[in-house]
Amino acid sequence: MRDVTVDSMGDPEFRDIEAAAERIAAHTRRTPLLDSPDLSERFGLQVTFKCENLQQAGAFKSRGAVNAVFALAEDAARRGVATHSSGNHAAALARAAQRRGIPAFIVMPRGAPRVKREAVERFGGRVIECAPTLKAREAAAAELVAETGATLVHPYDNALVIAGQGTIALELAAAAERPDAVLVPVGGGGLLAGTALAVRRLWPGTRVIGVEPAGADDAARSFASGELQPQPDPHTIADGLRGAMSERTLRLARRNVDAIVTVEEPSIVGAMRLLFERLKLVVEPSGAVPVAALLERAIDARRVIVVLSGGNVDLDALPWAAVDPL
Amino acid sequence: MRDVTVDSMGDPEFRDIEAAAERIAAHTRRTPLLDSPDLSERFGLQVTFKCENLQQAGAFKSRGAVNAVFALAEDAARRGVATHSSGNHAAALARAAQRRGIPAFIVMPRGAPRVKREAVERFGGRVIECAPTLKAREAAAAELVAETGATLVHPYDNALVIAGQGTIALELAAAAERPDAVLVPVGGGGLLAGTALAVRRLWPGTRVIGVEPAGADDAARSFASGELQPQPDPHTIADGLRGAMSERTLRLARRNVDAIVTVEEPSIVGAMRLLFERLKLVVEPSGAVPVAALLERAIDARRVIVVLSGGNVDLDALPWAAVDPL
Repeated sequence: MRDVTVDSMGDPEFRDIEAAAERIAAHTRRTPLLDSPDLSERFGLQVTFKCENLQQAGAFKSRGAVNAVFALAEDAARRGVATHSSGNHAAALARAAQRRGIPAFIVMPRGAPRVKREAVERFGGRVIECAPTLKAREAAAAELVAETGATLVHPYDNALVIAGQGTIALELAAAAERPDAVLVPVGGGGLLAGTALAVRRLWPGTRVIGVEPAGADDAARSFASGELQPQPDPHTIADGLRGAMSERTLRLARRNVDAIVTVEEPSIVGAMRLLFERLKLVVEPSGAVPVAALLERAIDARRVIVVLSGGNVDLDALPWAAVDPL
Repeated sequence: MRDVTVDSMGDPEFRDIEAAAERIAAHTRRTPLLDSPDLSERFGLQVTFKCENLQQAGAFKSRGAVNAVFALAEDAARRGVATHSSGNHAAALARAAQRRGIPAFIVMPRGAPRVKREAVERFGGRVIECAPTLKAREAAAAELVAETGATLVHPYDNALVIAGQGTIALELAAAAERPDAVLVPVGGGGLLAGTALAVRRLWPGTRVIGVEPAGADDAARSFASGELQPQPDPHTIADGLRGAMSERTLRLARRNVDAIVTVEEPSIVGAMRLLFERLKLVVEPSGAVPVAALLERAIDARRVIVVLSGGNVDLDALPWAAVDPL
């Protein structure tokens, strides 16, 4: 095991991604790569999918969470970890903490979807309810940390988390031919920042492209202007991508990312359905977002790799579901 | 390329499976193996999944179909292939024929589900409609063969098809540790016969267990009695498993298979949902049938490998779908 070379509050470097790969190997899955002649023909380019929906806890978030949890010194670890995210990061953090045998405290707004709560509780996470505003969540998390001494692990504004997400690109470089572009979804920008950092080193010349719903396009606007442009009222089915970039993820994106493109909602649903139907993969709306860019023919490349970021979707509310025809 | 050592009407041997593996390599996918600590804990044994739902055309049937199509001599091939199956074999045969550049004639009952027809047409298969009885299908296929000189490729009562399905077990033996048991679904018995033939050779001591819906249990009864016991009126959601064994598949099963167990319908739907939800895989009811046996705790073993046979399911009619809650 390499030493921890980065504080969670610094900017990660390539060697932090290498250290993360060693740290997470026993606790995460080396996910499969799938090609699809069928979808390649449909999109007019050769596409390969990195199936992070098949990752432990159903999303790439397990990489960053495991890296952050296992990098903690023993005494800090004993006091546990906390977050006020209620999505895939929450479940991934609960699972990572369970694997280390430490508590995970998850602050969640009252009325959060049942599936999200269950995903956390399945891995032994302790859910703390609060009012459904960002302010209430932050306050509840701060109080919790003051009380318990738990370490707050932010879902993306954390160098260890970003380094963990970057391990996807190490696996790509070990298993795939160099593509013209790597496409990843963008929410807060942790996956994008980590991927871009690794791709720059391993595949110079390969473009790294973030894809974001047009209804939650803070990253595209922040990336273009160089200043954070939070979106106060994001509207998208891609619930994992409603978060806004941080100074850190924006800085890293501006350093290493080639472009951020936006896609429309019908393309996201269409892409998701296509992944279920043709690839036989359960992919959540956020995970389908880069494929929406291919559907919209928005990417000019011959060979692309797409990171299918997660598969945690409410199977009772699939976006194309109509009345039961049985 | 090895020589074809078997006529489609004989009994396949292990070397025919080896020959099939070479013949199909360029036209099929080496599907991933996935473990699941989560489901292993739930089932009380260690389970690994062979993801044939991720196979080309969405099911293991591509293996047998490609083997049968590419084993044809040039002059026979030119006249095309035909079948009167309307399920996964039909789509797989159409795709295999398309890859060889020859016609595929698929006899299908009027009123067959839209998705089945589309799956065939997507790969350039020519659909010939007939009345919705087995008799009409057989008659239409016979007429077609007489007219066109196409080679009839039966979905399972064909040694080349059985040998093709057996290649799954070669991939298992190359990539996985020896399990106590391999579980596969049983319809007509082609997958079971091919798997058992290969497992006997590669992993002597590993049990091969077929799993069948109780509502379509001709294989379990035929296997037990040694005589074909067709089920005139099968009732199961697992549409791929409604077919009855042939003399050939029964003979091969009696030679190499350890047991055939049956499962109830609610377990099949529950297993299917679990595979979507936890493994993030789209699996059709037939593919979930062996997992239903694990849910029912019907398998006494420490380590099992389950073949998830296919993922072609109507996404507008998922069996747990209720009224759209959006």
